[in-house]
Amino acid sequence: MRIARYFNGEKESFGVLTDDNILIVSLPKLAKILDEQIPQRLEDFIALGHGGVEKAERLLEKASKNNVKRASLPVRNLKLLAPIAFPPKIICLGLNYRDHAAEQNAPIPDEPIIFLKPHTTIIGPNENIIKPEFVKQLDYEAELAIVMGRKAKNVPVSEAKHYIFGYTILNDVSARDIQFKDKQWTRGKSFDTFAPTGPCITTENQLGDTSNLSIKTWVNNELRQNSTTRNMVFNVYEVVHYLSRVMTLEPCDIIATGTPAGVGFAFKPKPKFLQAGDTVKISIEKIGVLENRVVED
Amino acid sequence: MRIARYFNGEKESFGVLTDDNILIVSLPKLAKILDEQIPQRLEDFIALGHGGVEKAERLLEKASKNNVKRASLPVRNLKLLAPIAFPPKIICLGLNYRDHAAEQNAPIPDEPIIFLKPHTTIIGPNENIIKPEFVKQLDYEAELAIVMGRKAKNVPVSEAKHYIFGYTILNDVSARDIQFKDKQWTRGKSFDTFAPTGPCITTENQLGDTSNLSIKTWVNNELRQNSTTRNMVFNVYEVVHYLSRVMTLEPCDIIATGTPAGVGFAFKPKPKFLQAGDTVKISIEKIGVLENRVVED
Repeated sequence: MRIARYFNGEKESFGVLTDDNILIVSLPKLAKILDEQIPQRLEDFIALGHGGVEKAERLLEKASKNNVKRASLPVRNLKLLAPIAFPPKIICLGLNYRDHAAEQNAPIPDEPIIFLKPHTTIIGPNENIIKPEFVKQLDYEAELAIVMGRKAKNVPVSEAKHYIFGYTILNDVSARDIQFKDKQWTRGKSFDTFAPTGPCITTENQLGDTSNLSIKTWVNNELRQNSTTRNMVFNVYEVVHYLSRVMTLEPCDIIATGTPAGVGFAFKPKPKFLQAGDTVKISIEKIGVLENRVVED
Repeated sequence: MRIARYFNGEKESFGVLTDDNILIVSLPKLAKILDEQIPQRLEDFIALGHGGVEKAERLLEKASKNNVKRASLPVRNLKLLAPIAFPPKIICLGLNYRDHAAEQNAPIPDEPIIFLKPHTTIIGPNENIIKPEFVKQLDYEAELAIVMGRKAKNVPVSEAKHYIFGYTILNDVSARDIQFKDKQWTRGKSFDTFAPTGPCITTENQLGDTSNLSIKTWVNNELRQNSTTRNMVFNVYEVVHYLSRVMTLEPCDIIATGTPAGVGFAFKPKPKFLQAGDTVKISIEKIGVLENRVVED
């Protein structure tokens, strides 16, 4: 399943995106029609882990075509929201793609290097990335993001998949001037609106193998990043393992697993930074397309 | 007022510490006795900002001696808790004391350099700092921590104090081996239990001038840090100003304002790292004493 959160003009809810992206089947609505229980908030559904996903799958199997139709809403009438409004943590990896390390002549790390983004960076699909006037070198980073489904501490690599709820897209928007000035990456990546996420979460069982997913970024229809998760240094299970040795991971934690080659600052002979009016479009195979426009503050 | 959160064996609540640290006057209990309204949770009280503080002050003024006595509990019968269990953000400054920058020959920054700690690092007074077996260079950092009381974005220095609820102590526990290996500071400072906080929050109006507060750390009764906030590079109002230009600050955000000289790794001829069994005691003038013991994982 690909699960999206939305606002229908009256309230927020969540449901399953159809393959053609035309409809969303509201899971709380379907559960109500079938006289079954399901959480009203996506965060609470995610906290059920794989059990919640199995329950939702049973509901969809059990429901008649007519009941599914009654619970369906056209996507064009909805505003898609960031899948998780308030993640307990947003953990991001640096230098986790061999092609991205190569484009900046950086050594490949032997353990994941991390930083955190505050939850106030989160925006959803089609919301604006706000460029502060004093930021001169705005950049994008397409990232496959893990969404945690269970509390995890000291998890072995072989068990990690059982703790993952699913995957979404995160654009790790970065003010390079500030990031490179500070040396510490945090400040330049912590501005409000600097973490567009969505358009949906593809569940762990639906996505399956994450070892060779196409990941692409366009700026105003110019293809900038065109890579695959095959170039990742630490795969998603290794990432969960390593991080869970440091901190307790929790349901709805988002872990952005690094970006491939093709970021703006690495272009030769001249970097290609984002300007007000630009549109950034990121596509990751089996998840979807996340698009956001840049506006001046 | 100095406000502490506690567990009385049955439930969590909060109240005002007496100057001698012997009693806590439960604010929800006092409000109930006086037939007044006050939030049941400290987080909700903090979100009222200075208005909440004024209300609590009125209650204490209005109450008879006998009513205050009825709402009072002996501290020795309570477990003091971290003042804020789940801060929306924990923002920490690096190199914000001139004496600490000097002890490591680091340049003094011209803007605050920050990193974030995940909320899973938070522990309260007298809880154990857990040293993972693979961390070999464990260190302490005594810090004056701002507790935000209002949403803040683009706040001028002159207005910053109105957005501050109060101040507490934060020990920015750090695994130096990991911090220095990664260059990025986040991972080495993100282990569970690496942010002891407390013992209370001294309200902004009670603490007043923050420009020359004594700040001290003892490890097993050996005085290690002995400085004053006079050595800070950016004062608390400048810190709120700068950070609010980057991200929206929110009630219950914790901002740790950096540590003075005397951290373990800077001792000559040999660093003095923390070992299992050590006790770290931090004292900041007008707030109190925060003590935690180190144990092996």
